Amino acid sequence: MRIAVLGVGLIGGSIGMAARARAGAEVIGFDPDQACLEEAMRMGAIDTAASSIEEACAEAELVFCAGPVSELRGLVEESLDYSSLETVVTDVGSVKRHVVGSTSDKRFIGGHPLAGAETSGVSGARENLFDGARWYLTPQPTTSGLLYDRLQGLIADMGGRPQAIDAEAHDRLMATTSHLPHVLSNVLVDQATLSVLTEADRLPDVGPSLRDAVRVAGANPAIWRDIFDANREAIAEAIDDAVVGLRKASRLIRSGELHEIAAWHAAAGDDRQRLLATDAGGVLHELRVQVENKPGTIAELALALGRAGVNIEDMALYPAQDMRTGAVTLWVAGSEQAERAAELVRGLGHSVTVLGGDG
Amino acid sequence: MRIAVLGVGLIGGSIGMAARARAGAEVIGFDPDQACLEEAMRMGAIDTAASSIEEACAEAELVFCAGPVSELRGLVEESLDYSSLETVVTDVGSVKRHVVGSTSDKRFIGGHPLAGAETSGVSGARENLFDGARWYLTPQPTTSGLLYDRLQGLIADMGGRPQAIDAEAHDRLMATTSHLPHVLSNVLVDQATLSVLTEADRLPDVGPSLRDAVRVAGANPAIWRDIFDANREAIAEAIDDAVVGLRKASRLIRSGELHEIAAWHAAAGDDRQRLLATDAGGVLHELRVQVENKPGTIAELALALGRAGVNIEDMALYPAQDMRTGAVTLWVAGSEQAERAAELVRGLGHSVTVLGGDG
Repeated sequence: MRIAVLGVGLIGGSIGMAARARAGAEVIGFDPDQACLEEAMRMGAIDTAASSIEEACAEAELVFCAGPVSELRGLVEESLDYSSLETVVTDVGSVKRHVVGSTSDKRFIGGHPLAGAETSGVSGARENLFDGARWYLTPQPTTSGLLYDRLQGLIADMGGRPQAIDAEAHDRLMATTSHLPHVLSNVLVDQATLSVLTEADRLPDVGPSLRDAVRVAGANPAIWRDIFDANREAIAEAIDDAVVGLRKASRLIRSGELHEIAAWHAAAGDDRQRLLATDAGGVLHELRVQVENKPGTIAELALALGRAGVNIEDMALYPAQDMRTGAVTLWVAGSEQAERAAELVRGLGHSVTVLGGDG
Repeated sequence: MRIAVLGVGLIGGSIGMAARARAGAEVIGFDPDQACLEEAMRMGAIDTAASSIEEACAEAELVFCAGPVSELRGLVEESLDYSSLETVVTDVGSVKRHVVGSTSDKRFIGGHPLAGAETSGVSGARENLFDGARWYLTPQPTTSGLLYDRLQGLIADMGGRPQAIDAEAHDRLMATTSHLPHVLSNVLVDQATLSVLTEADRLPDVGPSLRDAVRVAGANPAIWRDIFDANREAIAEAIDDAVVGLRKASRLIRSGELHEIAAWHAAAGDDRQRLLATDAGGVLHELRVQVENKPGTIAELALALGRAGVNIEDMALYPAQDMRTGAVTLWVAGSEQAERAAELVRGLGHSVTVLGGDG
């Protein structure tokens, strides 16, 4: 199979590597950035470097458009122009409706792999980037079944888990589960900064909840400007829904109805557990560990767990103000693993509290 | 000096240990939970176990009320009744106005140490819990200078950094920087769960931003019900402010004004940097590392950094869907340390992207 990859960054480069290694595909790459294209060649992400989109598409059976979100519509259009009638064209953008809605060509199927750090270039590309990763596909009523099958077959060969979804549903889902958290971070960090300047007039003491909540504030400006633009309606609606939820919360808290406040809070805990519970290892347990915040402490903890075969699903480090002590929170799947982990941590002389799935 | 600690959990127990070890104080403890009191004795957190609040306060020069937030008003009142006219009474609750406003006794000074995991019991108590930790104090116009000096002297001896703050300003500050993030988490997790059930009808793929954003959703129900109750006005106002910020964001995103959206987003990044930059080590740099998500990987990373004397200020682990691969994000202070860290990580064969203070 011959495939074209247009835009050889982290995602495009990884597609090239996976398609070559796992599906025996011949990969032709194009990128407007010549240095990037050369690096992709050097890394073995592509077999050939094309000098134009036309050249890349000329004999491809499958074309991946992997440019920035704001350029995808043009890139898809051009690819369709230069590709044969038997070629399937797809993209990897994190917003789908604006691309899918721009063409009714039956050869185009929108795609979105949930993998990869958005800012990394081709140097971060790797063959196994898509292993086990959800890969959304947005076929249209006009989509050719043959072409859909070819695309999803290659994705599965590359390690991904293809799943068809309506483009609008995809964008609403992403708006709530990915784009809204970024908006909340931006709004909160602005409000927190103002509050600190007003109330405290000094460097603040940033606690763990604020630290987590503002982690993505202002992240990757160029990428996020494009996403806020491409998915603006769904994001604005998700924000409006959040406003409704917050007003309900504010009314509830003002009411002082302790029983209902407790029920609302408990329901949030249940929802979180449902969202995060992995089918692999069961309910997540949370281990809060008090440690000295010195080089090597995390290593000692992780090594002890690693030696015992306990996998850390998630981790957060909360240094105290003096940066000498702090708390580490570890999430471990399943109660047996959690108990084992707690024992090991205690064995190292640290104090640990375990919160179960219900806590 | 003779001090009484009423409620010997994590905070009360640590006060006892620090006061004994660092200030040579004699510590009398009381707790309605007999097992807890015995454990405190066993651990050396207190010298003597009192059988009542009256007995504990009888000859104390300093009384720490360290019970749950919802019981502090009663506990403070009782302590004042049983204490001498020369005794200073303080508390350690995370909400101040409702306690401070309940008494005009010049012997009472509200307090709030920013330290300790809220759910841990006395078993997690340790002498150095307050090292470098901010310890807010809320003196009133009527407060005796002599008693204030005694209290802040002991806190400094225990390793804390006392700072006077108006009780209302304290509660507004906490509402925005600590309580609001919990409310946002609760609202978001509810909305995300609903969205996933509506749009995807299956277990979701929870990305890093959602993972961080819902981390505290539904945490520690009993403690949070009390906080939502005790600080209800300030929290409701902080929520209302967030609603204003979100509406502004929703209008901005709907407008499609890319330049202004980019400026809003960049300002959030600047605010985050301002909030998190440590005076110790300079601007935080973010290292995104692609890794195999297997036991030992984190240890290997942390060990390499630890050996080179590079301290990890914050860390987040984002496993991919297959739980075999993933990304680790590390925050390191100062550009020299960040470059050193990136070199070390690359030396281990991982791909790493460094985002500077401006990224």
